[in-house]
Amino acid sequence: MRAEIIAVGTELLLGQVVNTNATFLSEKLADMGVEVYFHTVVGDNPTRLEELLQLADTRSELILLCGGLGPTDDDLTKNVLADHVGVPLVQNQAGLDALNAFFAQRQGTMTPNNLRQIETLQDGIPLPNRTGLAIGCLYKGEKNNYILLPGPPSELKPMFLEQARPLLEKEFPTTEKLTSRVLRFFGIGESKLVTELAEMIEHQSNPTIAPYAKPNEVTLRITAKTEDERSANALLDQAEAEVMAKVGAFFYGYGEENSLVEVVVDLLKAQQLSITAAESLTAGEFQATLGTIPGVSEVFPGGFVTYSEKTKASFLGIDPALLERVGVVSEACAREMAEAARRLADTDFALSFTGVAGPDELEGQPKGTVYIALAQRNGDTLVSENHFARDRDYVRHSSVMKGLDMLRRAILNKN
Amino acid sequence: MRAEIIAVGTELLLGQVVNTNATFLSEKLADMGVEVYFHTVVGDNPTRLEELLQLADTRSELILLCGGLGPTDDDLTKNVLADHVGVPLVQNQAGLDALNAFFAQRQGTMTPNNLRQIETLQDGIPLPNRTGLAIGCLYKGEKNNYILLPGPPSELKPMFLEQARPLLEKEFPTTEKLTSRVLRFFGIGESKLVTELAEMIEHQSNPTIAPYAKPNEVTLRITAKTEDERSANALLDQAEAEVMAKVGAFFYGYGEENSLVEVVVDLLKAQQLSITAAESLTAGEFQATLGTIPGVSEVFPGGFVTYSEKTKASFLGIDPALLERVGVVSEACAREMAEAARRLADTDFALSFTGVAGPDELEGQPKGTVYIALAQRNGDTLVSENHFARDRDYVRHSSVMKGLDMLRRAILNKN
Repeated sequence: MRAEIIAVGTELLLGQVVNTNATFLSEKLADMGVEVYFHTVVGDNPTRLEELLQLADTRSELILLCGGLGPTDDDLTKNVLADHVGVPLVQNQAGLDALNAFFAQRQGTMTPNNLRQIETLQDGIPLPNRTGLAIGCLYKGEKNNYILLPGPPSELKPMFLEQARPLLEKEFPTTEKLTSRVLRFFGIGESKLVTELAEMIEHQSNPTIAPYAKPNEVTLRITAKTEDERSANALLDQAEAEVMAKVGAFFYGYGEENSLVEVVVDLLKAQQLSITAAESLTAGEFQATLGTIPGVSEVFPGGFVTYSEKTKASFLGIDPALLERVGVVSEACAREMAEAARRLADTDFALSFTGVAGPDELEGQPKGTVYIALAQRNGDTLVSENHFARDRDYVRHSSVMKGLDMLRRAILNKN
Repeated sequence: MRAEIIAVGTELLLGQVVNTNATFLSEKLADMGVEVYFHTVVGDNPTRLEELLQLADTRSELILLCGGLGPTDDDLTKNVLADHVGVPLVQNQAGLDALNAFFAQRQGTMTPNNLRQIETLQDGIPLPNRTGLAIGCLYKGEKNNYILLPGPPSELKPMFLEQARPLLEKEFPTTEKLTSRVLRFFGIGESKLVTELAEMIEHQSNPTIAPYAKPNEVTLRITAKTEDERSANALLDQAEAEVMAKVGAFFYGYGEENSLVEVVVDLLKAQQLSITAAESLTAGEFQATLGTIPGVSEVFPGGFVTYSEKTKASFLGIDPALLERVGVVSEACAREMAEAARRLADTDFALSFTGVAGPDELEGQPKGTVYIALAQRNGDTLVSENHFARDRDYVRHSSVMKGLDMLRRAILNKN
C-alpha cells in the first residue's frame, strides 16, 4: 500500500516545531510494509490543504494527516477533510464523555471551542485519545483512506500505536506479513555493534537487520517476511542466536517499548529486592526514572538528593573532613554516599552518583567524570569511574543508565 | 516572496532521519520575510522529484532543495534540476581544487563519483561548501529561483548562512522584515487563552498572534512586519500590552528558549534564596528539573525523595500516627513534608509533593489528586490541592510545573 503523510500547522512552516511526527509514522509504517512516498507540511490554510488532498488522492491509497485537531479556529484539518470527502462532522459520544469528565475533574469551564475537539467524520471510525482530548479518525473512502491524528507527539504516538495501527492491520491485511523482534543493548555504541555484525548486515535479505541508536542504547530490529508466524519465528530465532553469539554480553531485553529501567524494576520485583539512591550530579533523575514505572513503590521506598557538600554531611552523615581530603568527585565519596543511603533506607541496594555534569569543571576534574557506587546488603560495594562525553543532559542521562545497568548485573549475578 | 522547501532522501521517508533542515531553513527564511508555504520530502526517485518540481513551479517563486548532492548513484537532485530547467551540468573549478586538496591531504584516492559533487548548473551561482565537498547552487530561472543545498545539517547550515542568505538578500532585496516576540504562560489552557484573546486574534493582521500549546504551558508568538526595528517594537509593545491586560496573571516570561524552571532559578539566584524538596509521587522529578540548570547548586543544596510511608517517617521525622489518621494523600502530609525538609536542609523554601500518580487510585483518592506544599522560612506554609488529568507522566509533570509556579509567585510577592 502506498501512503503519504501530511502535517498541518503554520508553526512547522515557521520553523518553530520539527516534524518528528512524520519520522515516527514513517518508521512504523515501514515496519508494517506500507511504502511512504511523500511527506508534506502545509500551513493552517484550508485552500492549500484542500489542493494538497486532491493531489494526494491521485498518488496515495493511504493519507495520514497530523495536526489541526485542537480547539482553536485555526485547527481546520477535520473540517477540510470532511468537506473533501463530502460528509458532515458529528459529535463523538465517548469523546464528549471524556471531555465532560476532564472538565468536571479540573473544575475548569468548558468553552464551546472544546466541542470541536470531539467532532469526527460521519461514517468514520473514531480513534480515542488516551493522552489528550482531540479524537482522531480512520475514514475509508471509495479509493483513498484517511487517518486523522493529533499534532502533539504525546497524543499522536499512543493513538497511532494503540488505535490506528491495529485497525490498519485488520482493515488492510497483507498475505506476506512482516514480523519483527527488537533486541536492546546497553554499553555498546552503534558503530561498534555494526562492525561486530558487519557480515550479517551485509548478507541480510530475510530477515533484515536494522540497528537504531538512541542516547545511551542501541536497538536492533530483526524483521522476517513470511506467510505464517511459525516460519517467521524460526527465522528470527536463528538470526537472534547469531547476534547474541557476537554481542550478547550487552543485551538487556526485548521489545520496542521496553527500557532498561523497566527491566531492572521487573527484576527487583521478581526477587523482592529493594533499592534506594543518593544523587549528587543527577539531582534526582535516577529516582525520577524509577518513578516512571507504575508500582515501583514495592521496591523503592525513597532516597536522597545531596547536591551540596553540606547535605552530603547533614543528610547522610558523611564526614566533611573526608570530602575535604578526597573531594566530592571521588570513588570514596561515591562509596560513602551509597553505603549511608542503603543503611538509612534499609534496602538491599543503594546507588550513588557523584561527578561533574558541566558545563564547567569541578575540583579540577573535567566535565563528564562521574563516580557511581552500588552498595549491597552483603557489605560489598562496587564503584565505577566513568568519563561521559557531550553536554550536561547527556552526562546526567548516561549516569542514570550506567547505574541501572550496574544494578541489573548485580541482581543477575546473585542467582 | 513565496518559497517552499523540498528535502530529497529515501532515508527521510523510512523514518531514519528527521527533517531538521526544513525547520532550520524555515526559521531563517521567516526572519528574512520570506513566506514558506510548503515542506515536501520525496525519495531518491527522479520521476517523483521532477513531478514535484513542476508542481512547485506553479506555486513558489523560490524553491530550496536539500539533499542528494553526494557522490553516490542515488544522489540525483542536481541532475533532475538541470534537466528540469534545461541546462547542462558543468564542473566548478573552485570545487575541483578543494576536492583535489582534500584527497591530497588524506592520501585517499578520488573516485570518478567524487566529481559529481563539484558539478553545478551552467549559469548558476555556485555556493562553496566550507564543511564538506558537495557544492551548492543558486539558479535564477525566468519565473522561479532554485537553491541547491547539501543534506547533512553540518554542511547545509553554514552554506545557507554564509553563502545562500547573503546572496538572496542581495538578489531579492525586501523592505519589510518580520520581528517576533514570544510570551510564555502557565496556569491557563490554550483554549481558555484563545477565548480570552478572541477579539485580538480575530482582527489580527499586523502584528499576527499565534498561540502554541506545550504540556502544561502555552506560548504566544507576536510577529510584526515592518521596515524598521523601531516601528516593529512599537507594534509589539502595543499588542503585548493588550494581551497582558487580558491574561497577564498567567504570564511568566519571554523567549522561545526560556522555561518556568529557568525563570524560577534566576529569581532564586537574584535574591539569594534557596530551595529544597520532599517528593513522594514525583519521585525526584522536581529536583531533577532544577538540576537541568547549570549553576543551580548556588540555590539548591539537595532534598528528599520519600516515596513510602516509612521514609516519610525515617527521613523527615513525620509521625506515622498522623499518616495513619489523615493518609499520605492529604494537606497535612504535604505540609509536614515541606516543613520538615525546609528545617533539615535549612533553606528559605521547601516544596513537597504527595498524591496519586496513577494508574491506580490510592487511599480511595482518584489518580491525579496531588497536594503541593510550599514551606517558607517565615513559618507560613501554603498548600494547594490539585486534580490533574491524564496519565502518570502528565500528573507528575503537572505537579512539578505547579510547584515551580507556586515558588515563583511566592518569591515575587516577597518584594
